[in-house]
Amino acid sequence: MPEVLVVGPQADQFRSLLEPRGLPGFTAHYCERAESAAALISDIEIIFGPPAMVSGLVDQCSQLRWVQSTWAGVRPLVEQPKRDFQLTGVKGIFGELMSEYVLAWLLGIERKVIERAAAASWDPRPDNTLFGRRIGILGTGSIGQQVAASCRMFGLHIVGLNTSGESVPGFDHCYALHERFAFAQDLHYLVSLLPDTPKTSNIVDASLLQCLRHGAVVINAGRANAIVNQDLIEALRAGQLRGAILDVLPTEPPEDSNPLWREPNLYITSHTAAPTLAERVADVFAENYSAFIESRPLAGVVDFNRGY
Amino acid sequence: MPEVLVVGPQADQFRSLLEPRGLPGFTAHYCERAESAAALISDIEIIFGPPAMVSGLVDQCSQLRWVQSTWAGVRPLVEQPKRDFQLTGVKGIFGELMSEYVLAWLLGIERKVIERAAAASWDPRPDNTLFGRRIGILGTGSIGQQVAASCRMFGLHIVGLNTSGESVPGFDHCYALHERFAFAQDLHYLVSLLPDTPKTSNIVDASLLQCLRHGAVVINAGRANAIVNQDLIEALRAGQLRGAILDVLPTEPPEDSNPLWREPNLYITSHTAAPTLAERVADVFAENYSAFIESRPLAGVVDFNRGY
Repeated sequence: MPEVLVVGPQADQFRSLLEPRGLPGFTAHYCERAESAAALISDIEIIFGPPAMVSGLVDQCSQLRWVQSTWAGVRPLVEQPKRDFQLTGVKGIFGELMSEYVLAWLLGIERKVIERAAAASWDPRPDNTLFGRRIGILGTGSIGQQVAASCRMFGLHIVGLNTSGESVPGFDHCYALHERFAFAQDLHYLVSLLPDTPKTSNIVDASLLQCLRHGAVVINAGRANAIVNQDLIEALRAGQLRGAILDVLPTEPPEDSNPLWREPNLYITSHTAAPTLAERVADVFAENYSAFIESRPLAGVVDFNRGY
Repeated sequence: MPEVLVVGPQADQFRSLLEPRGLPGFTAHYCERAESAAALISDIEIIFGPPAMVSGLVDQCSQLRWVQSTWAGVRPLVEQPKRDFQLTGVKGIFGELMSEYVLAWLLGIERKVIERAAAASWDPRPDNTLFGRRIGILGTGSIGQQVAASCRMFGLHIVGLNTSGESVPGFDHCYALHERFAFAQDLHYLVSLLPDTPKTSNIVDASLLQCLRHGAVVINAGRANAIVNQDLIEALRAGQLRGAILDVLPTEPPEDSNPLWREPNLYITSHTAAPTLAERVADVFAENYSAFIESRPLAGVVDFNRGY
């Protein structure tokens, strides 16, 4: 049976989630730090851990056959040269959390949760509504599709952007990457859920922001490379944007002295949009482990060339 | 053809929404104030206006056949003695707005929109999620059903309370009025959408609040009579409740000096949960007007005995 390395700060948590399952022939080593894994690495066939940590280990793993990432974003593993193993991400478990996050902020802004929570006098002026407005979602994979379904419940018109412009269930229309200005035209809301790949860098720049409806709201719950933050800030200051919510930043965590914290109408949510829930990730690993030892196809296989 | 009185502060707005429709034989008088209607009242067969204003007019209307309320709540018209006319409310148009309101606050609280909007440093501790939690909805009519459908999208377990405990689509279980403590047991969230009737008064009192899960959140987006606000405040202060959102109060508007404005974790939203959208109400009236002159059944007929 293959030897498994479970590595990363959550290793002990995964031990308590995996050992009681009695997976057939399951023999795992649990290491919180990469260095602790050095002595046993040459016999390891399976690694379960966060991509940034695992990417520093794989070139020493001569027996490596499969890596299960604990994260949706796998760029560090795609960018290292070794490719003679299967890489699986945790697709499909972040959609619910991401839907909560996107709707929490859109509804929070339109229904004035922040202002009304602080109110000290009666203000019966009606709030805005999402109903009938246009949202554009950058990224139409499993997470984007679940966010779109939640937006549908609130009567939004939904357009998507993906590589080829192929139609995707739940979107009223999808545009290709090269049609990004047509995609952005007249949107009330723009949400990026894009993975970090060379193709997604700087997609949301001053030219694209100019296409949005005046007073639009932008949310980045994908990866930081998709948005030119300086252009975003200038659009906020000019009033082209009414608000922006950034879950991700180029350098995390930013210092407390970073002026972004004090930029009006810019909210930073500390990379909490769709946190890794250990129980759900353990489920994904356990199902893939059973598939692996039975030589069935794994779920969430990453294409090294596409990068996701 | 019947003479119509359109009365209330929105009369001019309804004029501009109704006159261009060319409704067959439509002859209307528009009065912003009830007194202005006195001279013509004896010939009026149809009144379209807010219940509190219309209730003061109906006993002078010897020809009255139908009143279309501009509001969902019709208690002032149910409580006056005249009943030899049809009364229709505007059911079915508030569900979307109410869903937005309820989810805006539930998501806003669990995903920490208020705190994160004010954040000045990185805080990666995961937010709470609605997924898998229990919500109880007081009132399972058309509004309650739409709120339940939105809650379903976010993975909530949903129970309802109605007069007889009859099953309602979209609710995992419904309880009868006399089972209110069983209904409230272990709820993370309690939402009242109840109309104002004698049966709904003080349903949410100290005994019921004690049944909720410790740290529950209560939302009142129905009518103020359903909740004993003093009991609610004591439950907040004791920590039994984590938060409460009141859209309605026994006296509206409250003075700025009212201490409720400064009660920690209590949010007052100025009766904006589901405002009357004039366009939608005009649609309801126009459709019912056509039905009325063609002697077809009207939509949203109120049962004077039930009170809704």
